[in-house]
Amino acid sequence: MAANPKFLAATARVDDAAIKPLPGSQKIYVEGSRPDIRVAMREISQAETPASMGAEKNPPIFVYDTSGPYTDANARIDIRNGLKPVRLDWILDRKDTKELPGPSSQFGKIRATDAKLTELRFAGLHRRPRRAMPGKNVSQMHYARQGMVTPEMEYVAIRENMRRAEYIESLRNSGPTGKKMAALLGRQHCGESFGASIPAEITSEFVRSEVARGRAIIPANINHPETEPMIIGRNFLVKINANIGNSAVSSSIGEEVEKMTWSIRWGGDTVMDLSTGKNIHETREWIVRNSPVPIGTVPIYQALEKVNGKAEELTWEMYRDTLIEQCEQGVDYFTIHAGVLLRYVPLTANRMTGIVSRGGSILAKWCLAHHKENFLYTHFEDICEIMKAYDVSFSLGDGLRPGSIYDANDEAQLGELRTLGELTQIAWKHDVQVMIEGPGHVPMQLIKENMDIQLKECSEAPFYTLGPLTTDIAPGYDHITSAIGAAQIGWYGTAMLCYVTPKEHLGLPDKKDVKDGIMAYRIAAHAADLAKGHPGAQIRDNALSKARFEFRWEDQFNLGLDPDTAREFHDETLPAHGAKIAHFCSMCGPHFCSMKITQDVRDYAQQIGVTSEEALAKGMEDKSREFKEKGAQIYHRT
Amino acid sequence: MAANPKFLAATARVDDAAIKPLPGSQKIYVEGSRPDIRVAMREISQAETPASMGAEKNPPIFVYDTSGPYTDANARIDIRNGLKPVRLDWILDRKDTKELPGPSSQFGKIRATDAKLTELRFAGLHRRPRRAMPGKNVSQMHYARQGMVTPEMEYVAIRENMRRAEYIESLRNSGPTGKKMAALLGRQHCGESFGASIPAEITSEFVRSEVARGRAIIPANINHPETEPMIIGRNFLVKINANIGNSAVSSSIGEEVEKMTWSIRWGGDTVMDLSTGKNIHETREWIVRNSPVPIGTVPIYQALEKVNGKAEELTWEMYRDTLIEQCEQGVDYFTIHAGVLLRYVPLTANRMTGIVSRGGSILAKWCLAHHKENFLYTHFEDICEIMKAYDVSFSLGDGLRPGSIYDANDEAQLGELRTLGELTQIAWKHDVQVMIEGPGHVPMQLIKENMDIQLKECSEAPFYTLGPLTTDIAPGYDHITSAIGAAQIGWYGTAMLCYVTPKEHLGLPDKKDVKDGIMAYRIAAHAADLAKGHPGAQIRDNALSKARFEFRWEDQFNLGLDPDTAREFHDETLPAHGAKIAHFCSMCGPHFCSMKITQDVRDYAQQIGVTSEEALAKGMEDKSREFKEKGAQIYHRT
Repeated sequence: MAANPKFLAATARVDDAAIKPLPGSQKIYVEGSRPDIRVAMREISQAETPASMGAEKNPPIFVYDTSGPYTDANARIDIRNGLKPVRLDWILDRKDTKELPGPSSQFGKIRATDAKLTELRFAGLHRRPRRAMPGKNVSQMHYARQGMVTPEMEYVAIRENMRRAEYIESLRNSGPTGKKMAALLGRQHCGESFGASIPAEITSEFVRSEVARGRAIIPANINHPETEPMIIGRNFLVKINANIGNSAVSSSIGEEVEKMTWSIRWGGDTVMDLSTGKNIHETREWIVRNSPVPIGTVPIYQALEKVNGKAEELTWEMYRDTLIEQCEQGVDYFTIHAGVLLRYVPLTANRMTGIVSRGGSILAKWCLAHHKENFLYTHFEDICEIMKAYDVSFSLGDGLRPGSIYDANDEAQLGELRTLGELTQIAWKHDVQVMIEGPGHVPMQLIKENMDIQLKECSEAPFYTLGPLTTDIAPGYDHITSAIGAAQIGWYGTAMLCYVTPKEHLGLPDKKDVKDGIMAYRIAAHAADLAKGHPGAQIRDNALSKARFEFRWEDQFNLGLDPDTAREFHDETLPAHGAKIAHFCSMCGPHFCSMKITQDVRDYAQQIGVTSEEALAKGMEDKSREFKEKGAQIYHRT
Repeated sequence: MAANPKFLAATARVDDAAIKPLPGSQKIYVEGSRPDIRVAMREISQAETPASMGAEKNPPIFVYDTSGPYTDANARIDIRNGLKPVRLDWILDRKDTKELPGPSSQFGKIRATDAKLTELRFAGLHRRPRRAMPGKNVSQMHYARQGMVTPEMEYVAIRENMRRAEYIESLRNSGPTGKKMAALLGRQHCGESFGASIPAEITSEFVRSEVARGRAIIPANINHPETEPMIIGRNFLVKINANIGNSAVSSSIGEEVEKMTWSIRWGGDTVMDLSTGKNIHETREWIVRNSPVPIGTVPIYQALEKVNGKAEELTWEMYRDTLIEQCEQGVDYFTIHAGVLLRYVPLTANRMTGIVSRGGSILAKWCLAHHKENFLYTHFEDICEIMKAYDVSFSLGDGLRPGSIYDANDEAQLGELRTLGELTQIAWKHDVQVMIEGPGHVPMQLIKENMDIQLKECSEAPFYTLGPLTTDIAPGYDHITSAIGAAQIGWYGTAMLCYVTPKEHLGLPDKKDVKDGIMAYRIAAHAADLAKGHPGAQIRDNALSKARFEFRWEDQFNLGLDPDTAREFHDETLPAHGAKIAHFCSMCGPHFCSMKITQDVRDYAQQIGVTSEEALAKGMEDKSREFKEKGAQIYHRT
């Protein structure tokens, strides 16, 4: 990342690398039932199959796109103005919110008027914060339970389908392999796995019912109308979160905004701002205003800054002010460690690595210092009242998650998980959306158990896990130790996977680490979607494998999760343009290419019909003769 | 990798980076029942726990070490001389082999006397090749079935135990946490999972019985006495293989030798030389003479070079000569695609990606061209006769493995697997050691099925899988797509995992890719060992987590799989020496450190006794008062 020693609001801009379309791709918008429902997707175009292999058309595929307007060639990006508030009219149309005169938190007021902050402050927002009218509940869960299908729900339904039906139709009209692919995809009606059940066609009504049931959430603060709605639940695509945020010892506002745009370019479905340094308030404003994905935070971090790091001086009143401050900025979900109960704290004494959650340790410290029950627990209903006035979702924090294989699935962890289950019921009483955070460090053989306990204790509220890391012995590679666990727990039912970067346990991630973490987690999430039998997931695998088989190198790069790296790796050994249309590659060279023989087998099989044993035997002989007569040239040498 | 345009035998050397001990580590040798059984291990020393946390001693841990003499500070390495033949006396003592006058293959004779090759040729070998005396069988399986415990078996038993018992004993004498760790480790008697059963203490007799049963192999060609014996079987530690080898379009002998030393430094248990370019024979000689780990090859690659890439010109006689050539050089296992039967070839016609194995495609081409059954199948007993005269193990190749998610577990693949099961029985009839190669591309939900079919059809012969890759959509990251599958299949029972590097599908791996592939696979193998409940596996996780908790940064780096990268990542944010003894890190800064609170909780719990509810309640109050009186300073600020 470029050094950015002094961040100045007046000249802030985002790196060009993050605001161009991905190669071979364009942004498309699928219109819903009203013209302002325009669901963004990425269309990846493909070349025709080479003439020697059948000259089949390969229709474009449509993939889920988290990158927002940044990858739209027609969008004009200026982070000083923020993004267009695509949801604003939907919120206003519901007529259940009111505009506030300005920030209602004490802290928000102070920051808004502090002249020293002018050069840091985001100046592009010209609307005021909103909250629910008295007596109103503006959560998507509340609407869902009233039987109302919101534009957000419709958006989500269209988004999750990824134009699967349209793609299958165009496959049918493409050629013999396309027809075969279409037939297989069309046959798959429903993805079912470990109790999850994903319909082949997601309807708005299905979205509504899942949200009403509490099995999925749509994080959508009314003060963050810039979000493109997305859903987190085990009957939908598995999502991933990227953590960003500076610490007392490192990084600036500009770097964090850049990490956010970088995260969503590569597939972050939500972003958590975990900043703990100075200017948390201003950093967050820049991130929220420029983010098309939901933003999560851990409000206790900022609360602790306000008492200069002295956990014992935290109070409910000050924490409450922090919640309101962040609700009015537009944070979409809050990690709240309300399950760290006084009685659980001593259970961590015999652990190998004790309490490893920052939030968990802050609250444990508070509990010990006051010998009182966690104030987030005792004030939980008060918190619900605030959340439902802005539609902020709970991400109930696992403050006692295990920090080592040794501590996995112990009584401290599972005790807290049961408490989170109780709190889920209370939140649902208020129609507040909830997800549950999970570990941490868990060896493979205990992952399923952890998932099953969560589903049971938390009544199927979406699980949102950090990894889990399946071993402790690879600092520097924890994106991999944890992607292994993440893929499995995603398959078993986790709805969102919080990424881990290679820097975990060692330092703060830079842009490269953020991308490495995202990639590992996009892989884990997709592997889970495949294993769950998600009806549309295999479209991309099939398209890429067909491109690979047909030596359509450019398509192979573009269909992959990271076209830039794939192209760069290929070019390291065979940089010439010719190599990208060659029918072999550097691994085997022309003599050893295993892909080409299959075309021969296929031509031959088609010729004689593989179903008839007799024809097969005869064909074999004919073929043998013909093959030798032709000089046995089945490789198309270039 | 440094460019090495011209390789010259006279000046060949290996990169210094590959021949120094790993940090904080020394090579130790554990003596067996005779003084020349000296089992190499790596001892990692640790600092004491800081005084503020109990000043406990942390005994050194012993880890499995594949790196051979290269990491022994006392060894003198000169790749022109090769390694010491540690097994030679054991082989000679058995008095069942004879020295040959020189290479008995035609090709070996030609290469040995070709003056043009002098500058490439390895000149450091002063012994002649050996083979079994007429009527003798020199395979480890044969000895095992005769009830004989060879020095190789004893070596393996000592090696697999990793001084677990001694370590537990030293833990017991270290301090309170050490005692607790020892108690838990000592309680674990046997790792059992999916039919595997790993004893807490591996005996030579257990090794013998597993080899006799065919459930494990010890690849140990009598012409590769430089190997430190190792075992591949599901009741032992999961192993990994690294592929190296040049192709027609890339790389030289020097680079390949360097990749071998680099692979074993980071944990490659075996190395396959997949070279397909010029000078395969000489490249292999350099690799074998300098390798302390078993070397595998795919002889059909070299056979194809001998007929200038024309598969249809391959003959049994020429292939046979190639086998003997390689047996006499010391290759320890051969991938042989004897299961690619004529009738399976048409089954690949409807696949998305056809035949993706090089060896499979060569044989399919041969079968089609001749309309005859695969000559490796028809000559299988002849091959067994050769293998048992040198103790070369079969790695029965999966020439029809799936190359895409679409093709996973299809009839071509499973048909071939059943044939490999039949061939296993034939090999076992000859007391020839066998492992079975497996896929490829398999989505998570089909991995278990694949493993179970292999165990059943192949009578529990060790499975050796490439990945499997759990999705096709991430070219550039296939070390990760496949580590996810590898960890799972390792847990389910696969004995050895063949690594995949980030360059898979794109190009030939360089040194960085080799290390990245090894790391991903060491993680997968270790995650599998943990999940299987391997009695010694968790020692390293526990030690590292304890170091992490106690902010012993240097120990945390050194106990990890890759100390260099961990240290480098840490230093990117906090480079000063002081930061490595600091009780916080760059992620959270001193205010947010979650580790330190636990020490407070622990002190407190110890003080009052966590078992007594009453004491707990009272203690909480006392503590609260005392805590505030002391100024609530529980963080040791630096």
